Amino acid sequence: MPVTITVFENSPDRGRGLARDMPVRWALEEAGLPYDTRAVSMEALKEPRHRALNPFGQIPALQEDGLVLFESGAIVLHIAEGHPGLLPADPGARARAVTWIFAALSTVEPPVIEYSTAMLFERGESWHEQRLPLVLNRLRTRLDDLSARLGGADWLEEDGFTAGDLMMVSVLRRLKGHGVLESYPNLQAHVARGEARPAFRRAFAAQLEMFARNRAG
Amino acid sequence: MPVTITVFENSPDRGRGLARDMPVRWALEEAGLPYDTRAVSMEALKEPRHRALNPFGQIPALQEDGLVLFESGAIVLHIAEGHPGLLPADPGARARAVTWIFAALSTVEPPVIEYSTAMLFERGESWHEQRLPLVLNRLRTRLDDLSARLGGADWLEEDGFTAGDLMMVSVLRRLKGHGVLESYPNLQAHVARGEARPAFRRAFAAQLEMFARNRAG
Repeated sequence: MPVTITVFENSPDRGRGLARDMPVRWALEEAGLPYDTRAVSMEALKEPRHRALNPFGQIPALQEDGLVLFESGAIVLHIAEGHPGLLPADPGARARAVTWIFAALSTVEPPVIEYSTAMLFERGESWHEQRLPLVLNRLRTRLDDLSARLGGADWLEEDGFTAGDLMMVSVLRRLKGHGVLESYPNLQAHVARGEARPAFRRAFAAQLEMFARNRAG
Repeated sequence: MPVTITVFENSPDRGRGLARDMPVRWALEEAGLPYDTRAVSMEALKEPRHRALNPFGQIPALQEDGLVLFESGAIVLHIAEGHPGLLPADPGARARAVTWIFAALSTVEPPVIEYSTAMLFERGESWHEQRLPLVLNRLRTRLDDLSARLGGADWLEEDGFTAGDLMMVSVLRRLKGHGVLESYPNLQAHVARGEARPAFRRAFAAQLEMFARNRAG
């Protein structure tokens, strides 16, 4: 029985693949696993039936033979641990890849989200302009460090693409088109490298197709 | 050879155990593992020698037989996977516990940090008072959900204390004394339950002892 992932019925990003089902779809495609989706409306996300799956009323959730997981990081790690293609076999290299999953979600994503939130939802606030340099500074501090670490490499670790790259690319994609990511050519290239993977393209097409279909319906 | 963890020479929290070495120390104590510490000054954190361990110039890093890991979440998970006491044996229950590590760091911590940052570093900003209700609202949304999910249980999952509780308690502890956590009696009790564990107390005492010693020296 294939796994089922819970996704937005109408993604607020209008099919740009920035919602948190995207890294999960991508990981499933990298692992070559078929999956079903269960589309949930914004209203239904906050209802008890969905909160039994995800207590924070968010997507995604993964259902697999009675097991329910939430948190995109935990789901990607679960998929990566159970199937080849996303983590190296060597235990040390594997632990390093897992470190990058956490670095993406816990160290890089918070200032990315802070910046996106400021740009998307706080532009009308009287304090937006005054506060923005501080937010941008926090973001640039992290991106400077990440860019210095990546250098001219293709992926974050020598062993090649891992679930750590998958998650970092997923986080950095939120910045596309704002002009910040674009000032780090090696990070932009890292994102492009991720997006060029056939598994990414299949995952992206699937979420876009669902957005188009539900909008039309 | 025991593992070595990199910690602050002088923790900016003045020994309150809010720095990110604390969950790592706690996990090592739960697992019954001896460890060495390497104290690093704020200046040295930003130097190449330390950035080779942690590219973001932060603590902690873990060194173990040539393996270097950073990110407290990844280190705690690594310890938990290699030793009994922090993850259930059943694979499904184990994946659920890992989900809570990610939920703590990726869903609950960002609004906690946003709130702490506002209260500690942005009080002097002209926009602080105007913006605070919005920050508090984001934080309360998450804590409402977490509190509803925990209900009257001792720990986040039925199987008892896991690394997921360890990380959630570590995150929630940052809120102590601000008045927000205190309005959720069951979350406050969850924190108290974590802090009462002998392993927590040993870890807390060790970081406090280091702070006192380095301040005196």
